[in-house]
Amino acid sequence: MYDKSNQQIDKLATFSDTPAPSVTRILYTDNDVAARSFIRELMESAQLTVREDAIGNIFGRWEGSEPSQGVVASGSHTDAIPYAGKYDGVVGVVGAVEAIKALRRAGFQPKRSLEAIMFTSEEPTRFGLSCIGSRVMAGDPRVAVSLANAVDEDNVTFTLAANRAGYDEAGDNLQSVAVGNETYAAFVELHIEQGPLLEEQGVSIGIVTAIAGPASLGVEFAGGGGHAGAVLMHLRNDAGLAAAELALAVERHVLESGSQDTVGTTGTVKLYPGAINSIPRNAQLGIDIRDIDGSRRDAVVERVRATAHEIAARRGVVLQNFTVVNQDPPAQSTDFVIEALKEASEELGLGHKMMISRAYHDSLFMARIAPTAMIFIPCYRGYSHRPDEHATLEDMANGVRVLALTLSKLSSNWQAPLE
Amino acid sequence: MYDKSNQQIDKLATFSDTPAPSVTRILYTDNDVAARSFIRELMESAQLTVREDAIGNIFGRWEGSEPSQGVVASGSHTDAIPYAGKYDGVVGVVGAVEAIKALRRAGFQPKRSLEAIMFTSEEPTRFGLSCIGSRVMAGDPRVAVSLANAVDEDNVTFTLAANRAGYDEAGDNLQSVAVGNETYAAFVELHIEQGPLLEEQGVSIGIVTAIAGPASLGVEFAGGGGHAGAVLMHLRNDAGLAAAELALAVERHVLESGSQDTVGTTGTVKLYPGAINSIPRNAQLGIDIRDIDGSRRDAVVERVRATAHEIAARRGVVLQNFTVVNQDPPAQSTDFVIEALKEASEELGLGHKMMISRAYHDSLFMARIAPTAMIFIPCYRGYSHRPDEHATLEDMANGVRVLALTLSKLSSNWQAPLE
Ligand SMILES: [Mn+2]
Ligand SMILES: [Mn+2]
Ligand SMILES: [Mn+2]
Ligand SMILES: [Mn+2]
Repeated sequence: MYDKSNQQIDKLATFSDTPAPSVTRILYTDNDVAARSFIRELMESAQLTVREDAIGNIFGRWEGSEPSQGVVASGSHTDAIPYAGKYDGVVGVVGAVEAIKALRRAGFQPKRSLEAIMFTSEEPTRFGLSCIGSRVMAGDPRVAVSLANAVDEDNVTFTLAANRAGYDEAGDNLQSVAVGNETYAAFVELHIEQGPLLEEQGVSIGIVTAIAGPASLGVEFAGGGGHAGAVLMHLRNDAGLAAAELALAVERHVLESGSQDTVGTTGTVKLYPGAINSIPRNAQLGIDIRDIDGSRRDAVVERVRATAHEIAARRGVVLQNFTVVNQDPPAQSTDFVIEALKEASEELGLGHKMMISRAYHDSLFMARIAPTAMIFIPCYRGYSHRPDEHATLEDMANGVRVLALTLSKLSSNWQAPLE
Repeated sequence: MYDKSNQQIDKLATFSDTPAPSVTRILYTDNDVAARSFIRELMESAQLTVREDAIGNIFGRWEGSEPSQGVVASGSHTDAIPYAGKYDGVVGVVGAVEAIKALRRAGFQPKRSLEAIMFTSEEPTRFGLSCIGSRVMAGDPRVAVSLANAVDEDNVTFTLAANRAGYDEAGDNLQSVAVGNETYAAFVELHIEQGPLLEEQGVSIGIVTAIAGPASLGVEFAGGGGHAGAVLMHLRNDAGLAAAELALAVERHVLESGSQDTVGTTGTVKLYPGAINSIPRNAQLGIDIRDIDGSRRDAVVERVRATAHEIAARRGVVLQNFTVVNQDPPAQSTDFVIEALKEASEELGLGHKMMISRAYHDSLFMARIAPTAMIFIPCYRGYSHRPDEHATLEDMANGVRVLALTLSKLSSNWQAPLE
């Protein structure tokens, strides 16, 4: 069983835009489309009823004996940022299908229906917006506007990219993707920790009680540009140097927050024209700031905004854009789901600990429409978003066992309607 | 006549990878190849004998009555950095052909042969090395090694790129491109100023007496990377922030030189993996430092190098690469060529001034194998390497007239061998 899920993870890793061991799988590219086919086949071979919504969230359902009751679901994503690894997201999609298969093999009969989900584009790589699939499902009020305006770096719109990948209704029919609060009775996501604690402490299972809220900023400076030889230093207004100062200011303002739970990153910098002998005329930054305390994070965002204005004024460049792409509140897990995970770990004799997730996940949005919690499993040195990201077969198997047992508890645990 | 050269400049501008008014024409791409055909046709229609060397320098010769004497040549480049303008380089190629045509129309009979030249890749865009054509012609001792190791950002080698563009011998036969000190009796390059002085002072003709020497650096920092949410700030070694510090240090060290003739630019920064939610694991910078004083410039290069080491040590990143791609000495123009330009300007009643070129040109290398000087013409606000780069028809016509008269003087001014 678990060898098989390893084979599936290896197979998924071959759908990549960059050479092994790195994995790059960007929303609606050929490799993303190929991974989607693979996941649908995986669900079908597990005898699940497969459905895909207008933006490509994929659902594989095992109907329970009480199909009118809220569904118990588990899932994650399969997209991967450039030069990432094999496990982030993938473990939670393959693991959900494996857990359901294990229950079927064990003769389990679900009351509530069970569902495995592959969410569309948890990573913000292509359109700058994270968790597109779960965000739209959760009915995020701003997401329709964000997606209507979203273009990738080749100026391809979200709608066109979706259409090219075969999702003809992605543009017109976003509201069909949203699910209400009634659909899901519970949601559990299995994921690698992406931090070092479980491995360091030799604990098999992390039970996530809260997820830090991410804020993503898009910033653009514009200056005069010009020839790198011909324009004297005092006549320059170099957009690239404004960007360099802002990246360093992000680090400084994050450290000033005083809490180690505040983190901030300038992950992308693009200079135009981007030639060694040309002064950057335009610089675009992608900045990510997170905290488990939403207001402390938002204070850092505002300090970064003020510094961006100060840099622009001092350097004579224009702050062309300072967009808060998203500023999502942190999420809290639901007690009864945490409780089910705890019981399952104990019944299986697996050590577990309560922890927070500093990385965000589709669970951040599923928590808005369903009682939610997450399972973390150890990963090598806490590495993630790197080619050497790794989880052992044993740790994955433990995660799938806890997930299966938890799903069975949640599926059975329903109240017959009062009469 | 001059309307025609404007048409030719407009036509060349259509061979571009980016939309008008910007021009992007990168070495050995389809648009570069198309521009080359256009230039060969232009030379042929001017009744010049066209020859191309192994790396695509294009020569159009009008044989003189004393063909064994050194040739008098003029030319420039037609490649353009991303999102550049129509005039940089192009004026000097189209202008050289126009000047020769004007002499022929005027009934001039050359003694020394006259030659128009289009140099391959003056801009360093694709392979990081500037003035490839003139550098190889001048027999630069390090150029063969540089080109043998050069790859573009898609890891295509110089040789493969040349082969794909139809230059089958570019890799094996570099030495066939070199010309000795005997070939050229004089070289004159017509070029837009790329600075504001001629326009501001209302002077038609700049006579260039010296060209600042450029140094180009390739720098790479490598750090641990990791997930932008999961890795705490004190555990990071962010290669992107090391790059940001170095870009600001380049500016600082240049300003410390104390001379306004020292300039420095970080024109390219590339972050890997380049995702908003990933800590940069790798950062590559392209840095350009220039001065008319070679040793003052080299002192700045060494300060930048020391700071790169200091940043790497302090931030716990690895300084993976610090390559001086080129560090060319400044060039001085030759008196008798300057004198010919001065006489020609005066005879045509055009105001002129002596000036230095802060931008480099193919003349920097031609000066190693030929008595050389340059003609500058005004350009709008000194703008260059920008889509709004502009030179007026009148200023171009003046430049071509001075060039034609100068070429005629230099062609006639030869000494019969002593007997
Ligand atoms: Mn991820
Ligand atoms: Mn993930
Ligand atoms: Mn140029
Ligand atoms: Mn030029």
